Amino acid sequence: MTLPAPLTGVVPPVCTPLTPDGEVDPPSLRRLVDHLVGAGVSALFVLGSSSEAAFLRDRQRRQVVETVTAHVGGRLPVLAGAIDMTTPRVLDHIAAVTEAGADAVVVTAPFYTRTHPAETARHFRLAAAASPVPVIAYDIPSAVHTALDPDLVLALAAEGVLAGLKDSSGDLAGFRRVVTGARGRADLTGFTALTGSELLVDCALALGADGAVPGLANVDPHGYVRLDRLSRAGDLAGARAEQERLAALFGLVGVGDPARMGGGSSALGAFKAALHLRGVIDCPATADPQIPLAPREVERVAGFLTAAGLL
Amino acid sequence: MTLPAPLTGVVPPVCTPLTPDGEVDPPSLRRLVDHLVGAGVSALFVLGSSSEAAFLRDRQRRQVVETVTAHVGGRLPVLAGAIDMTTPRVLDHIAAVTEAGADAVVVTAPFYTRTHPAETARHFRLAAAASPVPVIAYDIPSAVHTALDPDLVLALAAEGVLAGLKDSSGDLAGFRRVVTGARGRADLTGFTALTGSELLVDCALALGADGAVPGLANVDPHGYVRLDRLSRAGDLAGARAEQERLAALFGLVGVGDPARMGGGSSALGAFKAALHLRGVIDCPATADPQIPLAPREVERVAGFLTAAGLL
Amino acid sequence: MTLPAPLTGVVPPVCTPLTPDGEVDPPSLRRLVDHLVGAGVSALFVLGSSSEAAFLRDRQRRQVVETVTAHVGGRLPVLAGAIDMTTPRVLDHIAAVTEAGADAVVVTAPFYTRTHPAETARHFRLAAAASPVPVIAYDIPSAVHTALDPDLVLALAAEGVLAGLKDSSGDLAGFRRVVTGARGRADLTGFTALTGSELLVDCALALGADGAVPGLANVDPHGYVRLDRLSRAGDLAGARAEQERLAALFGLVGVGDPARMGGGSSALGAFKAALHLRGVIDCPATADPQIPLAPREVERVAGFLTAAGLL
Amino acid sequence: MTLPAPLTGVVPPVCTPLTPDGEVDPPSLRRLVDHLVGAGVSALFVLGSSSEAAFLRDRQRRQVVETVTAHVGGRLPVLAGAIDMTTPRVLDHIAAVTEAGADAVVVTAPFYTRTHPAETARHFRLAAAASPVPVIAYDIPSAVHTALDPDLVLALAAEGVLAGLKDSSGDLAGFRRVVTGARGRADLTGFTALTGSELLVDCALALGADGAVPGLANVDPHGYVRLDRLSRAGDLAGARAEQERLAALFGLVGVGDPARMGGGSSALGAFKAALHLRGVIDCPATADPQIPLAPREVERVAGFLTAAGLL
Repeated sequence: MTLPAPLTGVVPPVCTPLTPDGEVDPPSLRRLVDHLVGAGVSALFVLGSSSEAAFLRDRQRRQVVETVTAHVGGRLPVLAGAIDMTTPRVLDHIAAVTEAGADAVVVTAPFYTRTHPAETARHFRLAAAASPVPVIAYDIPSAVHTALDPDLVLALAAEGVLAGLKDSSGDLAGFRRVVTGARGRADLTGFTALTGSELLVDCALALGADGAVPGLANVDPHGYVRLDRLSRAGDLAGARAEQERLAALFGLVGVGDPARMGGGSSALGAFKAALHLRGVIDCPATADPQIPLAPREVERVAGFLTAAGLL
Repeated sequence: MTLPAPLTGVVPPVCTPLTPDGEVDPPSLRRLVDHLVGAGVSALFVLGSSSEAAFLRDRQRRQVVETVTAHVGGRLPVLAGAIDMTTPRVLDHIAAVTEAGADAVVVTAPFYTRTHPAETARHFRLAAAASPVPVIAYDIPSAVHTALDPDLVLALAAEGVLAGLKDSSGDLAGFRRVVTGARGRADLTGFTALTGSELLVDCALALGADGAVPGLANVDPHGYVRLDRLSRAGDLAGARAEQERLAALFGLVGVGDPARMGGGSSALGAFKAALHLRGVIDCPATADPQIPLAPREVERVAGFLTAAGLL
Repeated sequence: MTLPAPLTGVVPPVCTPLTPDGEVDPPSLRRLVDHLVGAGVSALFVLGSSSEAAFLRDRQRRQVVETVTAHVGGRLPVLAGAIDMTTPRVLDHIAAVTEAGADAVVVTAPFYTRTHPAETARHFRLAAAASPVPVIAYDIPSAVHTALDPDLVLALAAEGVLAGLKDSSGDLAGFRRVVTGARGRADLTGFTALTGSELLVDCALALGADGAVPGLANVDPHGYVRLDRLSRAGDLAGARAEQERLAALFGLVGVGDPARMGGGSSALGAFKAALHLRGVIDCPATADPQIPLAPREVERVAGFLTAAGLL
Repeated sequence: MTLPAPLTGVVPPVCTPLTPDGEVDPPSLRRLVDHLVGAGVSALFVLGSSSEAAFLRDRQRRQVVETVTAHVGGRLPVLAGAIDMTTPRVLDHIAAVTEAGADAVVVTAPFYTRTHPAETARHFRLAAAASPVPVIAYDIPSAVHTALDPDLVLALAAEGVLAGLKDSSGDLAGFRRVVTGARGRADLTGFTALTGSELLVDCALALGADGAVPGLANVDPHGYVRLDRLSRAGDLAGARAEQERLAALFGLVGVGDPARMGGGSSALGAFKAALHLRGVIDCPATADPQIPLAPREVERVAGFLTAAGLL
């Protein structure tokens, strides 16, 4: 299907349920998709950071996209990450995920290598030239160790290279420069600006973002859909209250002991533990080499869910 | 063939010659291998940073290993990088490069993700458990944005997980902790410590390193072999003089205008331009999205070669 | 005078006008204070980053505080930075600025040294124990290279160590954790949360911040006072429009050529050039070793002022 | 006295003994000076990082310089740090330490502020213009968060701005570029290149450094003097053995529990504990807000001393 321009609303970055031996679990993935679609989300984003894309083998990535696009059946758009170090490898992923049915691809700046902004620009231009579907830039400096300059994003959008931005920079002021810069420009009609900041969705929508890609929406998609609707209805106080409820729930990402594991293991482990506790997925396993949550840490996840009325 | 334990001498990280349209150029690659082997190197390292591994598609990576192992025919060991973000993806690369004939695999810490040292340790343990050949750790914080702790390297070596270390950290004091820490320990006999610092090979050998993996050895393998032999013969003044000559030549990595391109594009572009100027490879192209050197920058490479007596 | 608890509204970080030979210019400083007070600001913050505190000699710092407190004469509170590397040096600055009449002190985490969070906590406890006036924490990771953890800020506030937070982290989500965490707690009544993000004041106020410390308020204090009043009146659309007008004006911080000077020289040079062009201060000089703006760069500042209706 | 050009040998960065209440302890400081001078060091460096300069009040800094210069009485040169954020503040320190008798000043790049290389160059030029004694650049990126470019150092040396470099960058390859670049240039005769890397002094001397500034020389000055003499006598194997003995002793910097304190507190605490255990200073206290070593950690320091034959 054609990607709406702009794409609005809640676009969850879909977790990838795994079996205990690390394989993709398609029945759980389909139940997770139903859980999200049933809550009223606008589109799905697979193979992003919350999907553990960095941990999935190529055949698993393809399996995820095929499973989700087949199950969704065109009811709503499916965006897919094409996450790899440099252009030639990203082009291979673009080919794979679009053959598997993705309606748009999400591409980061190069990483591992030392990249000049001019090289990042070339990277996106080459990706767009090779992609049969729209390209959305994924700004995630915590992973790629460079940030996208707002002026570069706008310039590439005006060239027709970028259809949108998924902002996980944590820098709301920079994101705002893109949102405000795109507004009212005839050549940027249809540009999609999505925030990935779970804790600032109300602010991002208030300043003009089109939608949100909150990892926590895996756990509580209804909450983010309510927040989005309150915001669009102009009930900013209501949106803020819903955001604050979700912020309290977001505390679950910190259950993992930082002496034992990284922040990513803790957050992804907590999302999956929550989905398991809520009965959506069969197994809360995360991919290697992540450290799994201990039972006492899973209990803390349950506490957060209970406090949020989700268990 | 079995990897020597320890592996000593010069182990060049072999550049990957490309055609103008970005495909691997096997005849040029074979000529480059002949150029290196003929100079007296001890082993070859393919699919490292100097090989543009981060830029090669999976089918190209496999082609590089197959081409080199077939051409070398067991005359000396071939080490291959298995460079990817996390364990499951690295395991796929290990399977691919060892099927293609690699005698050892070189593995970095996870990247893109936020990684805890305990997860890095698991990563290496899982890689070693799955690998039919020895695993050498690749410490390259400029690319992966974490550094390997010397104590962790030694502990994993004592467990039998790591057969060696390829150090591109730039931190000679940390590398020395590994070298000195391994010396005289019965359980670490055979551990290989290789420096990747082109400009400090004489120092690294003097403090006890087993060998060197200098990217510049693509351009002047004879120089590094001389340096290695002088050092082993105890002629430290001679080694230093050779090292200083090579350091002057290394200035070629800076020919690229930093306003136009990244440091990686400049360095790899200069290595390949030098190999082209010396008649070893047919085309100096680097992979996308790197910016190519301009003619005036290639002229500066030629100037460095002339000054070093290589043209 | 006693610091309001909480302190609300616009608290400009007052620029320090200098003479051509680098001395403090008291008449210009008094005119700047009049310019700000006349616009309706709530308090003044001297010796912060926008004041070039890092560039002022100790005698100049004292002169700034004495000049401002004498001129203000208790009409509104004067906060003063006590910016130095570690606790003993900060205590000397606290003594100096409070003797000179400051109503509160603003203190960063230690810098230059490698600091553990437990040491940062000790630092604030010792500062508060020695200070005759309230201590406000200044979170500015771009300068000190560590960030304050929201939980630590709240814990120190509950202990009575911190009276408030001046947040220049750029991390609105982290700031929100402090604002939301302090709300409704009896032991944190009176805690002041101030944002230093010029471009997100509307968002910060909407999520519950008490006030703002925008460097750009030197140039357009009336704009920020309007924004603050619109926000408090519940006119969020009006606040957003005013914020967007100010964001456009903020573009002036980028007039300096990044090939010639740092971002700080450009921003501070532009603020002072604007104050000079608006007739508030006599000389736009910045302190050594900053590079001054070139005439063509000052012209661009004038262009921003004209576009904003300020010239 | 006039600074030798170049200055060679061991130049310990002298610890600052404190009383339990945080004041400078002149008798202990004089005993420490005797301990160092008696071992055969070439000069003394006060008010550097190992001296806790960042933690000393201005009156304490002056007291340190006066105490040491008076006690040394011109027997050997005294270098003094003029460590502060920017040029005007550094100029005040230069005036203070030279009035107190320092024979050279040691100056870092600006910190806390965002500094462009052109501003760093101006900073050193202004410092040299104002200083009655030679200026030595202090490259310490771990503290100031920028590194000095070797080409800039050489250019400023050729201008007559810099008399030398104290390298604490940890980047031996960059330091070597300065050493090799200065060699044989008529305009750089007399330039002094000193390494601050405790663990690489043998390497640094072998590649041409003039001397060393090892913090650990407070604890074992005789060892570093032996190492320097072995190196100058061409006994590189002997130098290496002495260096490895000192490297084992250097392990004492890690006795502090990283869950409780920063690396600086651990290292400085260990140096002072060792000096206290060896009977050189009266009290091992470090300045606020550093966390003191626990008794079990001090016992580990004693173990290192015993193993090194120093207790």
